[in-house]
Amino acid sequence: MTNFVCGSNRIAGCSFSIHPMSDDFINIILGALKEVDTSKVWMETDDVTTLVRGRIPHIFDITKAILLHAAKTGVHVAFEATYSIGCPGDTAGDVYLAEDDHVLNKEKVDVIKQKAATKFALYPLGGGDYMEQIYAQIEAMKGRGVAVSSTHYATRLDGEVVNIFNGLEQVFIDMEESGSSHTVMTVSMSVNSPLKSMK
Amino acid sequence: MTNFVCGSNRIAGCSFSIHPMSDDFINIILGALKEVDTSKVWMETDDVTTLVRGRIPHIFDITKAILLHAAKTGVHVAFEATYSIGCPGDTAGDVYLAEDDHVLNKEKVDVIKQKAATKFALYPLGGGDYMEQIYAQIEAMKGRGVAVSSTHYATRLDGEVVNIFNGLEQVFIDMEESGSSHTVMTVSMSVNSPLKSMK
Repeated sequence: MTNFVCGSNRIAGCSFSIHPMSDDFINIILGALKEVDTSKVWMETDDVTTLVRGRIPHIFDITKAILLHAAKTGVHVAFEATYSIGCPGDTAGDVYLAEDDHVLNKEKVDVIKQKAATKFALYPLGGGDYMEQIYAQIEAMKGRGVAVSSTHYATRLDGEVVNIFNGLEQVFIDMEESGSSHTVMTVSMSVNSPLKSMK
Repeated sequence: MTNFVCGSNRIAGCSFSIHPMSDDFINIILGALKEVDTSKVWMETDDVTTLVRGRIPHIFDITKAILLHAAKTGVHVAFEATYSIGCPGDTAGDVYLAEDDHVLNKEKVDVIKQKAATKFALYPLGGGDYMEQIYAQIEAMKGRGVAVSSTHYATRLDGEVVNIFNGLEQVFIDMEESGSSHTVMTVSMSVNSPLKSMK
């Protein structure tokens, strides 16, 4: 049981996909989903993305775990996600807010060593000072054990998957604690890429 | 030569990836890129995404063309993109704004019949009336020859790839013409999926 406390009891969520670049993509996706404990979230998969909704710690715990289980096959996998909290009128699935903050997949996946290249973008909606909020979060990311660099339309993070997810979760927590009404964050992550970085 | 005129001369851009779920993914990606005429945009690929920057018509023409060339292999392909215009301080590559609006790939790819399932989300940044702008664009999409439905964190579009891209480009043009200072739109598209929609 962790002592972590969310800055808010609002429902968070993520619409995400994992794309294994392999003929065996179906088994890799289904295999990864099967290894993850999703009992503390609402979850639904369709032909475009998987939706997961609940408390912030579980949203990040589960998306990280699914990617790491897919990545350990050694196949080149892309992870594409939109994390969101505070969308006006968003209420379905609120029952999962009664879950505690003890995450169910950390112990099993945080031991997996896996490098990733990531681009993330933060969109604080509804306010005029959003660029200052974005710059502050990029600056804070530099203290979180990942290499931070700039690119068009996003910020690039290079490092261990576990550190990257921890850093991204902290962005979300910080935005909630700062009172942001509606926060969206997009993440594109690439693991086991055969392409060397051209940066 | 089309008579299309952009609502703005600001530089638009897109950070995108195509993910062919196949062992042959490298050849499919390189093959698609080779078939597309990118001479009217600035373009750069790294190990996470490809960046394309220039005028709105070319940004949508090129991303549509790359997806359609990859899709015609019959392989299950995911397309993930973030379109952006008006990011404060965004100036590099402005030389491509001198290009005219005649798109270079439409003739070759608009004849390709290809169904897709898509989720898109619009993020007008910096203003308080963003939800009204989003709802108006979703409503307008219903008259553009694609099936429009709602899902968490996004709006779902089903139909022909060409119609979906035309509709998404129109969203961007409308946002520019409405005077939006900074607009971001994310798109997740799936073609040739072996999964039937669970909706």
